[in-house]
Amino acid sequence: ALTHRRGRCICPGQGSDFVQPQSLEKMEVFPKSSSCDRVEIIATLKSTGEQRCLNPNSPRVKKMLTRIMKKRSAKSTSK
Amino acid sequence: ALTHRRGRCICPGQGSDFVQPQSLEKMEVFPKSSSCDRVEIIATLKSTGEQRCLNPNSPRVKKMLTRIMKKRSAKSTSK
Repeated sequence: ALTHRRGRCICPGQGSDFVQPQSLEKMEVFPKSSSCDRVEIIATLKSTGEQRCLNPNSPRVKKMLTRIMKKRSAKSTSK
Repeated sequence: ALTHRRGRCICPGQGSDFVQPQSLEKMEVFPKSSSCDRVEIIATLKSTGEQRCLNPNSPRVKKMLTRIMKKRSAKSTSK
């Protein structure tokens, strides 16, 4: 898995601007730290488990994160 | 590590409302899925590597995530 190695950012470039929300298993948000002087966002895709860097400055990425947070569980109806 | 087991949410309860931003190594955001019908946020703490569930509905948690995203890297000054 992609993790911080001392003093090194995980994502080589800026990262992509978009990923299909339905294909998303999770999004990892790494705050700026001593290891990396910029925020990093890594998406893990459901089907393949592939990890992909996303661009934290991209409005589309920010909107996707906000939309994920907004989709709270519907009033829990007992199954 | 905490991961989805088929058809089961990771976080037992709602999760806590706050964690010290400085102590944060990363935040994992799990969208609603077939495995779990609610958004889940898991914070990994730097010092201990402990994983802690955060409440996605908590305004403090949302503000923390937004603040993390806002802290883009300062104009990259070449070292």
